[in-house]
Amino acid sequence: GAAPAIVHAQANVRWRLASSFPKSLDTIYGASEVFAKKVSEMSGGKFQISVHAAGELMPPFGVVDGVQAGTVEMAHTAPYYFVGKDETFAIGCAIPFGLNSRQMSAWMFEGNGLTLMREFYTRYNIINFPGGNTGAQMGGWYRKPITSLADMKGLKMRVAGFAGRVMEQLGVVPQNLPGGEIYQALEKGTIDAAEWVGPYDDQKLGFYKVAPHYHFPGWWEGGPQLDFFINQKAFNSLSADYKAMVEVAASHAHVEMQARYDARNPLALKQLVAAKTKLVQMPKPVLDAAFKATMDICNDLNNKNPAWKKVYADYSKFRADQNLWFRFTEATFDRYMQAAKL
Amino acid sequence: GAAPAIVHAQANVRWRLASSFPKSLDTIYGASEVFAKKVSEMSGGKFQISVHAAGELMPPFGVVDGVQAGTVEMAHTAPYYFVGKDETFAIGCAIPFGLNSRQMSAWMFEGNGLTLMREFYTRYNIINFPGGNTGAQMGGWYRKPITSLADMKGLKMRVAGFAGRVMEQLGVVPQNLPGGEIYQALEKGTIDAAEWVGPYDDQKLGFYKVAPHYHFPGWWEGGPQLDFFINQKAFNSLSADYKAMVEVAASHAHVEMQARYDARNPLALKQLVAAKTKLVQMPKPVLDAAFKATMDICNDLNNKNPAWKKVYADYSKFRADQNLWFRFTEATFDRYMQAAKL
Repeated sequence: GAAPAIVHAQANVRWRLASSFPKSLDTIYGASEVFAKKVSEMSGGKFQISVHAAGELMPPFGVVDGVQAGTVEMAHTAPYYFVGKDETFAIGCAIPFGLNSRQMSAWMFEGNGLTLMREFYTRYNIINFPGGNTGAQMGGWYRKPITSLADMKGLKMRVAGFAGRVMEQLGVVPQNLPGGEIYQALEKGTIDAAEWVGPYDDQKLGFYKVAPHYHFPGWWEGGPQLDFFINQKAFNSLSADYKAMVEVAASHAHVEMQARYDARNPLALKQLVAAKTKLVQMPKPVLDAAFKATMDICNDLNNKNPAWKKVYADYSKFRADQNLWFRFTEATFDRYMQAAKL
Repeated sequence: GAAPAIVHAQANVRWRLASSFPKSLDTIYGASEVFAKKVSEMSGGKFQISVHAAGELMPPFGVVDGVQAGTVEMAHTAPYYFVGKDETFAIGCAIPFGLNSRQMSAWMFEGNGLTLMREFYTRYNIINFPGGNTGAQMGGWYRKPITSLADMKGLKMRVAGFAGRVMEQLGVVPQNLPGGEIYQALEKGTIDAAEWVGPYDDQKLGFYKVAPHYHFPGWWEGGPQLDFFINQKAFNSLSADYKAMVEVAASHAHVEMQARYDARNPLALKQLVAAKTKLVQMPKPVLDAAFKATMDICNDLNNKNPAWKKVYADYSKFRADQNLWFRFTEATFDRYMQAAKL
């Protein structure tokens, strides 16, 4: 067969990137802008990637189809949006009671994560590069506080994907609503609760005014990773130097995005508390029930989905080792600092 | 005056990088190799940086002088080695009871950290780029376990720099020893204790055989950041695309290095425990005394060192905010996972 066309080092390349996120989510959406800017700078302006917000070129959840078909060369998305295609997508982003942000980077960059996820993504003509993390998300906004497992039964909650499946086992009635419709649904009582991201993003949508009980932790998103998804053929057509720029600019965007969330969440949290938000820890029986339901679903998938089974086997072993290690010096250092008078 | 010479986009550039680390510290030393490799790949081999281990071109602690004088274009080092020049160096790396790894990245990439440290480094003709983090280090190896604050009095411990000053307030007699001499000193009882890094690095030096009590947390290094130090004139002489490559390759090495430590420490920890290492949490009264001594020293420096005062004011406010936020969803998620049967 014919060898793919090789774009030479100093060739002009123009790509389009479809983001799954609106510009208003500036921390997440911004990762694509950081990525494109750095690629442009490093290539002396010759490799240009135009960044398009959700809906501009295709619907937010259409980006995997778009990259697979080559409609766009690349996308920036949260892989767990695509669990309807295959649950394995979620492992490359976040599953309930999964890896935290640092552990996820460790699995990707130094464990087998990137290798295994890339093998899986070949089915979609996609090669992925880690493109940010939000850190552990909050557990959502509730009109009434959750004080027991019984409070979860019948709860109409805006929560999607994998977490929704687990919530169902707890008696929750998961609701699927776009971000822009959550506030009104909470205000009217059409839904009882909603999860979004964390203080910085949540504050902008004003949920604290209508559902002031802000629970933690968001056990279904302990460290969700965003990804740059690139059409494999488009990537292959790049020269070696442009390929390296893509990889390295993605890493830069990756570290930048987590830094933005970490730097911006504290102020938002303080403002939310000043505006009468009630911070409430999720009761342990709720976490325990969710943990058990999650493990049941994961084991069930091991029997049903060979792709899941292969990736999850590695992921879950890595997760056990990470938590074994982190409980010693990381956790005791953090705990001391969090209790200290600073 | 004359404008500096501008190296054009596709010019051949050759730099030398002096590392403060031996090749045997492959995670830390390796960050320089990752950095140089990515710059080479992105420039199509035209921008070559040769990496030199500690001692090859200059002594490990001579690298600031070397970069300042332009003997080498750049170095990779732990800035706190240079507290003897100015204590402010330590804030850009680690001070006792400081920021953890993620918080340090947040301060650098999104807070005022990079701006403030760069302003300080102009005194040394240096511009810095974050170049890795070890994560929270362990609290060292002890021939006898520390069970009370009284056990610290008269303890001869291999610990240097800022931590040594704090230890002195606890009655410790700090010792300065190169890595290669620690084992024998511990074996003979010339010293009672020694700190190094964490399981992966410590295992190789065999301390567990002669001082089996492995304490945590390493309160003086909760998230030490390594830096690439670049001679400002050398950096200014680069074209805009090469400058961007340096910045972005450094970020890639930054995320890679933390991932390596996180991925490799768990196995080393398990092997150490299997070889009869005793994991011991440092008693709270020791931490409390060290915390108080640290705050006293920091406040004293506020009165003595204007450069320290300026940077520390921003750092300490950021630290308070970070720990306010991290105690909620991050800490409760991590604690649940660390206690879970995985």
